[in-house]
Amino acid sequence: MKRIGVLGSGKGSNFGALAEAAREGKLPVKIALALTDVPGAGILDLAAKYRIPADYVPPGAFRTKLSPEAEREYARRLKEAGVELVALAGFMRMLKPPFLEAFPDAVMNIHPSLLPAFPGLESWKQALDYGVRFAGCTVHFVTPEMDAGPIIAQAVVPVLPHDTPYTLHARIQAQEHKLYVECVKLWAEGRLRVEGRTVAVSA
Amino acid sequence: MKRIGVLGSGKGSNFGALAEAAREGKLPVKIALALTDVPGAGILDLAAKYRIPADYVPPGAFRTKLSPEAEREYARRLKEAGVELVALAGFMRMLKPPFLEAFPDAVMNIHPSLLPAFPGLESWKQALDYGVRFAGCTVHFVTPEMDAGPIIAQAVVPVLPHDTPYTLHARIQAQEHKLYVECVKLWAEGRLRVEGRTVAVSA
Repeated sequence: MKRIGVLGSGKGSNFGALAEAAREGKLPVKIALALTDVPGAGILDLAAKYRIPADYVPPGAFRTKLSPEAEREYARRLKEAGVELVALAGFMRMLKPPFLEAFPDAVMNIHPSLLPAFPGLESWKQALDYGVRFAGCTVHFVTPEMDAGPIIAQAVVPVLPHDTPYTLHARIQAQEHKLYVECVKLWAEGRLRVEGRTVAVSA
Repeated sequence: MKRIGVLGSGKGSNFGALAEAAREGKLPVKIALALTDVPGAGILDLAAKYRIPADYVPPGAFRTKLSPEAEREYARRLKEAGVELVALAGFMRMLKPPFLEAFPDAVMNIHPSLLPAFPGLESWKQALDYGVRFAGCTVHFVTPEMDAGPIIAQAVVPVLPHDTPYTLHARIQAQEHKLYVECVKLWAEGRLRVEGRTVAVSA
């Protein structure tokens, strides 16, 4: 069984979706390690519940990225755990080329918008403010540019007339949980192939 | 019956969809005038077929906008025809504030992408190159910024594994024709209200 690692900074609802799917036998991977840059992040409690090894690893002095030393330490811990795919689940720091080159075409992220629309923070709020009629989520391979890597899959979510940021975000998250499991499963089955900036999915 | 005008630079497939819906009684407007900036544009033949008054009006010396004199002439002709809504149908020039202020919240455009993704030319090709899984089209009110005005409605179209620019564009255009008729109908029924940068649709 392929081994994956998860990085998260928050409560870890996408991590929970992956862990639950793996536990139920619907996702043929072993989550070998979860790491967080936030002491006491919910993702640690969730890892304990699913008996997944997990740890807080200090991120260093920067706010939006890991320090080079911290990034090496994250990569070292993941490699040591035999991780072949790193799934970002609400990890709030940019990853740099040395980390990405350690896991080529094997760092995945899920973003709560139909990229390339609304990269960055609180995409669901950006979508409401813009007035789009459809929002959604995107799973993509991570490249050094934020929220811009090759797209693996997307799901569309309607924006309803009386949506608030809360209701829209909840509707997107429900799709995120399904989409992320599907994408990691496609990867585990060896069905994803990055071709330039697009991703081919084999049958 | 409300009177609308159409501006187009090409073959006018969206103009054709509006004209056909009006002829069939499915769209309660009278298309009072069609104008083009391109001598011999297909839209002129289509207008003749539907017996809609139509004319070529010289655009002036610029390539991406009308000259101020030309813009005044377009507005004058549309006003003279009693037009209350101007629908752009493949009109390849930007309209400036004097024109837009002559038709406040009453210049509509249809764009072949899920805006704000892929503004500009050949959006379907941009979408394929980017590798998105969903494309679509957007009807919006026109503001001085290209493809950025308040969104009235959108339709989603899947991108299929073996799509070419041609097949994807055709799939988007089929949705465009339906969506544009729906939006002009909502306008004719007085159900659209611009609120800041979003559009409320009343029941």
